[in-house]
Amino acid sequence: MSFQFNLVKTGKDVEARLGKITTPHGEFETPAFIPVGSQAAIKATTSDDLMDIGVEIISNNSYHLYLRPGHRIIEQLGGLHRFMNWTRPILTDSGGYQLFSLGQLREISAEGATFQSHIDGSRHFISPEMAVEIQRSLGADIIMSLDECIPYPVSYEYALRSTTLTTQWAKRCHRALRGNGQALFAIVQGGMFDDLREKSARELCEIGFDGYAIGGLGVGESREVMYRIISQTAPLLPREKPRYLMGVGKPEDLIDAVMRGIDLFDCVIPTRNARNGMLFTSFGKLAIKNACHATDERPIEEGCGCYTCRRYSRAYLRHLYMAREILALRLNTIHNLYYYIHLMKGLREAISRDRFLDFCKQWKEKRQEKDDP
Amino acid sequence: MSFQFNLVKTGKDVEARLGKITTPHGEFETPAFIPVGSQAAIKATTSDDLMDIGVEIISNNSYHLYLRPGHRIIEQLGGLHRFMNWTRPILTDSGGYQLFSLGQLREISAEGATFQSHIDGSRHFISPEMAVEIQRSLGADIIMSLDECIPYPVSYEYALRSTTLTTQWAKRCHRALRGNGQALFAIVQGGMFDDLREKSARELCEIGFDGYAIGGLGVGESREVMYRIISQTAPLLPREKPRYLMGVGKPEDLIDAVMRGIDLFDCVIPTRNARNGMLFTSFGKLAIKNACHATDERPIEEGCGCYTCRRYSRAYLRHLYMAREILALRLNTIHNLYYYIHLMKGLREAISRDRFLDFCKQWKEKRQEKDDP
Repeated sequence: MSFQFNLVKTGKDVEARLGKITTPHGEFETPAFIPVGSQAAIKATTSDDLMDIGVEIISNNSYHLYLRPGHRIIEQLGGLHRFMNWTRPILTDSGGYQLFSLGQLREISAEGATFQSHIDGSRHFISPEMAVEIQRSLGADIIMSLDECIPYPVSYEYALRSTTLTTQWAKRCHRALRGNGQALFAIVQGGMFDDLREKSARELCEIGFDGYAIGGLGVGESREVMYRIISQTAPLLPREKPRYLMGVGKPEDLIDAVMRGIDLFDCVIPTRNARNGMLFTSFGKLAIKNACHATDERPIEEGCGCYTCRRYSRAYLRHLYMAREILALRLNTIHNLYYYIHLMKGLREAISRDRFLDFCKQWKEKRQEKDDP
Repeated sequence: MSFQFNLVKTGKDVEARLGKITTPHGEFETPAFIPVGSQAAIKATTSDDLMDIGVEIISNNSYHLYLRPGHRIIEQLGGLHRFMNWTRPILTDSGGYQLFSLGQLREISAEGATFQSHIDGSRHFISPEMAVEIQRSLGADIIMSLDECIPYPVSYEYALRSTTLTTQWAKRCHRALRGNGQALFAIVQGGMFDDLREKSARELCEIGFDGYAIGGLGVGESREVMYRIISQTAPLLPREKPRYLMGVGKPEDLIDAVMRGIDLFDCVIPTRNARNGMLFTSFGKLAIKNACHATDERPIEEGCGCYTCRRYSRAYLRHLYMAREILALRLNTIHNLYYYIHLMKGLREAISRDRFLDFCKQWKEKRQEKDDP
């Protein structure tokens, strides 16, 4: 099957949408959360763990894989799906955000980005055409056009110049596409300037992509500014194409962005927080290292269906974390990912039953409750 | 069921024995390898991983668990089996070897051992009675008497004094036992002095234990000396009781010690080497970081039935290792433990079919073969 997005339903009182994405590696419903696998692995988990959690699509990072082990090696080994033993859809990021994170180690020109490897300091150059070629050889179902992620704050002039560049790069990525069944998404930039976001969205839509991402958020701006941009940008994107909010966020962000018409999310928060012992529950965050868990026989959350909660107590998880056992990383990651995947499922069901606002209200009320009644 | 050892069969031309151990948490056949779980976890694995590998008994370390999370906490939570979600047999070490490893941080007297915690430097004292009490509250199926592991080399006088102390401590452990279904094993010491090993074995057998361990090996002596001690000591131990060689060793050590009548082994080698990227195969060791594996689609070992080999290529495992992905630790550990467990299974089958020497010959010949024909 080639790529397809079907808008199944839109919310009654809100912009929330229920959709279905079809890819060469199967289909899944939206809104969906995409766990981040930077280096051909969602840290500490196997594909079986992810399937068991109910993960339907994962992301990978072409910047990381270009540097190590090299996209040519992965291509030679039959592509990313086979390499990492993952049979469901994969999205690869173009590397724009990683280039942004490199700060002083990268230099942007009209032609592309020159950067130093964070691994060995070697110098590399990536053009929009190369970003597409790297992602073609990795073989993801959804690939992203190369963009420049604009720092915050910047001058209007910087943001304008950069947004124009992102459009030019998106055009070149679009032209470089080989029509091999991969879907290409463009990334709306524009900084925190409403008119530049509008310009970016309009120009990218004119080129025509399989989906549209909102990039350049979560870079230091306030929550208010972020939501202003999302609320403003989402309606500018075609109704019949998926909308992907990159790098965001916390559970409450997912809910608030779905409400504004976002279909796809990726974020390191569930996995990174898990490794730091910060666990998500319906009554808020739980720091597993806290002494109050030392003799607590309860699971992280009563009634949670994840592998970790079905087998292990808070007391054991606290012990593993304090003793720096590797197993802590895996069990915590499984729980947090399950929480995110389950939250998205809840949101989809709520949209489907026209109960989205009720769901949000109940979800927020539950958060106010104490863990220990 | 209370503890029982049944000697099922002894080898035709060698001392190798086939046995069955029954414990309150089920039975298993010997010779058996016991993976080491120092802190209530076999590093990087869950109980399900271990069950899938075919692990039948694991060890835990009472020294580590006494310090963190504390044996009283584990007792309060229903014991070690429940705490770590492991339903099969557990053996706990008394901590003698960890005290030995502490070097300058411990002081031995007739009364017991005073030591400083490796975690926070706090001072602690453990007597033989306390070692039994700690292990009682942890609830293992097999517990070990407190011993002094003799450094190497030492004077005859030191070894004599220490061996006498280990006998006295064993007597006190035996007296402290509550008859709650836990099996108590004593540990033969004596350094590298044949007469002291003989004295230790004789005195411990006079007290009468459920099983006997040979301790104090693998502390720096040559392989020849180690095998001299094993060959000399094993026959001094009662035929109808299990013999446990502590802290040894490499695959070839397991084979050579089984040949000399050893029934039980524990060692960190398969798990620690796994985390360092050193993998065991029937054709010898494989360093997964080597560049030759970068594009190798084969599993670690063709025909290996482990989870890792059934799903992942050397190329992927090398990538995970080079990229320092946590998943590398788990997948490598699973393979190495499977190798050890499978080797023991092969040894048991060989004894059962009176083909032990053939098995050893073939095993050693296969090791001479090249990996890449």
